[in-house]
Amino acid sequence: MAKLRNAFYAQSGGVTAVINASACGVIETARKHKDKIGKVFAGRNGIVGALTEDLIDTSKESKKAIAALRHTPSGAFGSCRYKLKGLEENRAEYERLIEVFKAHNIGYFFYNGGGDSADTCLKVSQISETMGYPIQAIHVPKTVDNDLPITDCCPGFASAAKYIAVSVREASFDVASMCKTSTRIFVMEVMGRHAGWIAAAGGLASGEGCDLPIVILFPEIVFNRDKFLAKVDAAVKKHGYCSVVVSEGVKTEDGKFLAESGAKDAFGHTQLGGVAPVVANMIKDALGYRFHWAVADYLQRAARHIASRTDVEQAYALGKAAVELAIKGENAVMPTVVRKSDSPYRWKIGSAALKEVANVEKKMPRGFISRDGFGITAKCRAYLQPLIMGEDYPPYKDGLPRYVRLENVAVAKKLSDEFKL
Amino acid sequence: MAKLRNAFYAQSGGVTAVINASACGVIETARKHKDKIGKVFAGRNGIVGALTEDLIDTSKESKKAIAALRHTPSGAFGSCRYKLKGLEENRAEYERLIEVFKAHNIGYFFYNGGGDSADTCLKVSQISETMGYPIQAIHVPKTVDNDLPITDCCPGFASAAKYIAVSVREASFDVASMCKTSTRIFVMEVMGRHAGWIAAAGGLASGEGCDLPIVILFPEIVFNRDKFLAKVDAAVKKHGYCSVVVSEGVKTEDGKFLAESGAKDAFGHTQLGGVAPVVANMIKDALGYRFHWAVADYLQRAARHIASRTDVEQAYALGKAAVELAIKGENAVMPTVVRKSDSPYRWKIGSAALKEVANVEKKMPRGFISRDGFGITAKCRAYLQPLIMGEDYPPYKDGLPRYVRLENVAVAKKLSDEFKL
Repeated sequence: MAKLRNAFYAQSGGVTAVINASACGVIETARKHKDKIGKVFAGRNGIVGALTEDLIDTSKESKKAIAALRHTPSGAFGSCRYKLKGLEENRAEYERLIEVFKAHNIGYFFYNGGGDSADTCLKVSQISETMGYPIQAIHVPKTVDNDLPITDCCPGFASAAKYIAVSVREASFDVASMCKTSTRIFVMEVMGRHAGWIAAAGGLASGEGCDLPIVILFPEIVFNRDKFLAKVDAAVKKHGYCSVVVSEGVKTEDGKFLAESGAKDAFGHTQLGGVAPVVANMIKDALGYRFHWAVADYLQRAARHIASRTDVEQAYALGKAAVELAIKGENAVMPTVVRKSDSPYRWKIGSAALKEVANVEKKMPRGFISRDGFGITAKCRAYLQPLIMGEDYPPYKDGLPRYVRLENVAVAKKLSDEFKL
Repeated sequence: MAKLRNAFYAQSGGVTAVINASACGVIETARKHKDKIGKVFAGRNGIVGALTEDLIDTSKESKKAIAALRHTPSGAFGSCRYKLKGLEENRAEYERLIEVFKAHNIGYFFYNGGGDSADTCLKVSQISETMGYPIQAIHVPKTVDNDLPITDCCPGFASAAKYIAVSVREASFDVASMCKTSTRIFVMEVMGRHAGWIAAAGGLASGEGCDLPIVILFPEIVFNRDKFLAKVDAAVKKHGYCSVVVSEGVKTEDGKFLAESGAKDAFGHTQLGGVAPVVANMIKDALGYRFHWAVADYLQRAARHIASRTDVEQAYALGKAAVELAIKGENAVMPTVVRKSDSPYRWKIGSAALKEVANVEKKMPRGFISRDGFGITAKCRAYLQPLIMGEDYPPYKDGLPRYVRLENVAVAKKLSDEFKL
């Protein structure tokens, strides 16, 4: 009988509230199949850990610690922003990966990330084949940007969406209380440089039995100052106040980020202050309304305390499915979420070939944005609503969430040479 | 038997996650004493509602709706930033108040706010006496700034503190994941123009079994650029990353807000972008580290979804106690939280004379800030820790908190003249 092959797991790019739930799914499932898969090694700081042969032996972690990954945000093994270059440009990097994998008897590559890592995953599968050391490469989807194709949604997005919807609802209640004599405008800046998925989630704050005036600025819609100001003014005249959700990626007619039209610091640097203050000050200058603004930044992708239960379940299920696909002998694939119905919401796990996934970006359909460009449609709501369903509170100690920090014990190196990144 | 006198309740100044819990305590308790107190009328948009005779009849609200105030953030009747002037400057306003109270047979004045409203409350008690229509005026403490004297803490503060502690922990986990190849600095701007209570709460993010490098900039400590940069740099060299919690009120040696030293917009307006981007860019310029920054703004005081259970219980208890004090015949007083012990945390309700409360600001003791000025001491931790204990999740529907919106039915006006604010 051949020696059991080990698995390699790495987290890639910006982390989320639930990427560790996928890690939990991968590791717990692999541990259940010890007859098929050896150890799970994780890359310290993502793929960088593979290149530098800095591997973490997850078998040293207790069952309890691994289980706690399910409710711990961030990347437990470290992540990185390190994009492997194309095969032609830097074949050495891919060869190094395979060399490390070979040294540690790694036959399964689980890569947990967005579009770029799907591409890397595919290349690892291909080059390992040509190098005579075939590795089964499975991509585990993750991105708050929700821009991977084929899968109905991407783990991480739904929790960010829930955080934004809850926050905009709460802040809108606040400004509604104050609008008689004080603040009338609340502006919330959200992530999404290329797509308005997260901004759209702000629209969920207003719903059945809770009508709130929310104006959304999408990166998909060219910013029109006059129309925007008219929309905000109408909302204030009707409701007394208005909440604005603005995507960091909103652009003006000349293709520049709206954020850049704002402040310059003493050195002439632009974009010191984000797009929220630019929008807030624009309203103040034109309409005279007092404002407050917030920038959620990392909070929106790290807020495990208010994660969507649906998101947690899908993140775990996709990690689990990745291992099951590997055991079935699949290669160069990504498990996906397949939506079976909106209401009641039902979903199952499917899979997609990586060549269909890599380098394809899922845009938000124009039909998800209202005709005037400032809101979401019923269709968009039907898509988003089920994703934020359910709460999945972490355990607390001393008033704070009890997030796990792993031991992250290093695997002894087997290669003598150092690899320069 | 004399006709039962009604009560007036109003919310004042910036709202919080739990001010409605105090309203709930006031109304539910008054309803239990129908033999002593008539109806509870609320001021629409705070004291402005009293001046304009725009009263809300809370007896029209269902038991369920009033109960739901306990888990609803913001000011359910509307609040305002409207400070009554001194008696000499504007006696007419006070006389108008008494006139409205008399017209509606109001004998109890419950004012839910911070230092300014404690002062107003005291004046109402005094002037009503001299006008021959004595009103029992009871102040219900509320302020995220935690700056009222005598009471151990102020409702609203603990939930803001919990929000900040949770958020800083989550964002610190995030930046820790990314620091190998990307972001090393996370800056979070928090409220507190005069006192660093909320900033101090950021220090709770790091605790037993969860050591995180957190540098705090307090308004109490004059900003020293070199020392600050050295502190951040040391944290990054040791941990690979650093989280900075900065109070909006931090000032430089010349007495100016640090925020003002940053951006200017096209019109030369300063402070477009808050203090967080100023601090983040300063670190980048001096040390070269990549950063992210967030400004929580209203989110920190509206975040009922992560409210402290201790805070909710105290807010309710203080509202309840206010009514009980009124029934006992007390006047010009404020119920307080009295701490009996830190660990286990035990507290009870006390009361303070308003003349001891009005115009006194509770500062953060210097002994709560570490010697180097960038952290909290064990003493500070012992004070803060119990306040954020416990969770008190609101009910959810469709993935979002189900916050109540009252009917807010107006009481028929009895006075013919209009009052100009």
